[in-house]
Amino acid sequence: MKLEKDINKKFTIINSISMEFKHGGDVKSFAEANGFTLDEVIDLSSNINFIKPKLDIDFNSLNISSYPNYDILKESLATCYLVDSSQIELFNGGSVAIYSLFRELNLKNIYLYAPLYLEYKRCAILNGYNLYYINRFQNIYSSIKEDSLVVFVNPSTPDGKFYNIDILMQMWMEKRATILIDESFLDFTDFKSAIEYLNKYSKLYILKSMTKFYSSAGIRMGIVISNRENIEQLRIKEPLWKISEFDTQYIQSALKDVDFMEKVKDINSKNRDRVIEILKGVNFIEKIYPSVANFILVKLKNIKAEQFQGLLTPYKIMVRECSNFDFLDNRFIRIAIKDKVAIDRLEEALCKISI
Amino acid sequence: MKLEKDINKKFTIINSISMEFKHGGDVKSFAEANGFTLDEVIDLSSNINFIKPKLDIDFNSLNISSYPNYDILKESLATCYLVDSSQIELFNGGSVAIYSLFRELNLKNIYLYAPLYLEYKRCAILNGYNLYYINRFQNIYSSIKEDSLVVFVNPSTPDGKFYNIDILMQMWMEKRATILIDESFLDFTDFKSAIEYLNKYSKLYILKSMTKFYSSAGIRMGIVISNRENIEQLRIKEPLWKISEFDTQYIQSALKDVDFMEKVKDINSKNRDRVIEILKGVNFIEKIYPSVANFILVKLKNIKAEQFQGLLTPYKIMVRECSNFDFLDNRFIRIAIKDKVAIDRLEEALCKISI
Repeated sequence: MKLEKDINKKFTIINSISMEFKHGGDVKSFAEANGFTLDEVIDLSSNINFIKPKLDIDFNSLNISSYPNYDILKESLATCYLVDSSQIELFNGGSVAIYSLFRELNLKNIYLYAPLYLEYKRCAILNGYNLYYINRFQNIYSSIKEDSLVVFVNPSTPDGKFYNIDILMQMWMEKRATILIDESFLDFTDFKSAIEYLNKYSKLYILKSMTKFYSSAGIRMGIVISNRENIEQLRIKEPLWKISEFDTQYIQSALKDVDFMEKVKDINSKNRDRVIEILKGVNFIEKIYPSVANFILVKLKNIKAEQFQGLLTPYKIMVRECSNFDFLDNRFIRIAIKDKVAIDRLEEALCKISI
Repeated sequence: MKLEKDINKKFTIINSISMEFKHGGDVKSFAEANGFTLDEVIDLSSNINFIKPKLDIDFNSLNISSYPNYDILKESLATCYLVDSSQIELFNGGSVAIYSLFRELNLKNIYLYAPLYLEYKRCAILNGYNLYYINRFQNIYSSIKEDSLVVFVNPSTPDGKFYNIDILMQMWMEKRATILIDESFLDFTDFKSAIEYLNKYSKLYILKSMTKFYSSAGIRMGIVISNRENIEQLRIKEPLWKISEFDTQYIQSALKDVDFMEKVKDINSKNRDRVIEILKGVNFIEKIYPSVANFILVKLKNIKAEQFQGLLTPYKIMVRECSNFDFLDNRFIRIAIKDKVAIDRLEEALCKISI
């Protein structure tokens, strides 16, 4: 599948992606449209970690008169992800990282293993790539053209599956592909990072949005990990200062909470198990996709996502309709894993709803 | 004057600009090198406003779980600068705005009215522009090639002069130039913005770093103001979220401090007058450049900037050496306008120093 290259049509597509994308997690509009306060809404549409790191910081007394220095943060991240700080570049969020990387790489063909995070599509179109989709659910080992850019999200979105990518890596390397692995949700799991491949292959980039796991969509930070030379090439095109001192300190402080990772993995997996049990008892759900992340993809039976949302609305619950993901349609919804209160409310709603 | 197009040489130039640039305001290194604590240093090297806006916000209780929404901030900025919010795009600092704009405009030739902020040079080289300098001090009305990009900083850096640009605007418009006016220091003055030209000419962009006037180098925010169509073209290439919620709230709150603008103008101009009086009495100063901003450019006599800094160091005062600005050399220093304590210390030092 190839997308439109005409510039006006491109902008139409981009705008529609933006609209859909923005709509995706717009809990405020949901609340307003239904006369709810924001606090009342159980937001199962957003995949932001509901557990927050402990922070030992007073944001009111931060020195913001000086230009930020990112050295300590980079060192902390390097320690956390077992790389050297020269192998990390910071960006104002995962999306900004994607934009910078796609611009810098500037290759001809891109393969997106879909469904995946919509921003990849938008950005591929903006940068004039020939865009190909590979359906992860059907033909994941499809062949690719040589010297392409491949994007693989692991664990995947919106389903949260972790893939052993050894065979794919072999194929990509043989095709001399530039490889981007998005591991924004890997910290929710015990699975191994593709970072270990950095020693074996030079055209590999690992991307991590820091906002999902660290429960901070309002913090804009994403990182790219690669070898030193690749990072140097990225860095040279970046302004010296771009990340807010607040955000720098937030992530720096969050990384100091040494128990956070284990705590999140533990609670998230227990809560996810409970949600799965609840969903198993629902007669209008056809399939629950296996997930290691903090969300679950569900295929509905005899009901459309919009209708399902309509049935949940009286319970002030919002889920994520998935029809704008490639290879999915209006029978798919994504349900985020949140706290006990949220799961109780979901359980109550699903018990009472009958179709 | 044209700069190197060879990619390796370009990177060398860019790296050296980065190093020089970073060195420019590195008060931490100055403190460490001389065994001072950071608090002891009188930093007259940085042109960040020393007066802080009153903020009615508790940063510790901000909701950072949700994606930021920039609508209110844009409305506040629009009200402040008398434009429509559709005429504003936000960036992670003035530098990021320059990078995005230069990339988007993608013209062949660029004219920098120099000396000026070093990031313009770095960014012009990165984007492969044919780079021409016009010496503001000598031949400001030099002719330019048609369809070029022109960059004019008003009030200028590092001297702080406000230029009436009517004649220049006429010339630029006749040459169908794309015009970028950097008004990062205009809020320190009562002079009129070039925003009024937006009704008359379509290829005009106004850039404002929000960190200088609002005393917040740690906050990363810069804005570009233009007509709706130009802003739409910029926005379409930007990710949906990029500015931190903290930074959004900081500037939003700062804009509510209605007395801030007048207060800053008043105090800054009084303090600047006092510094000028002090400098007038110094026998090794050849020229004090006229300034309406929060810094003063000084040309030294019989002493080099480095030596001058050496003489100030025992007094724990740091100034900005200006030899890395085009058309300036090692006889030039920039002195920032700060508070009474800082000016007293400067006065004391200058009285005691004799050469």
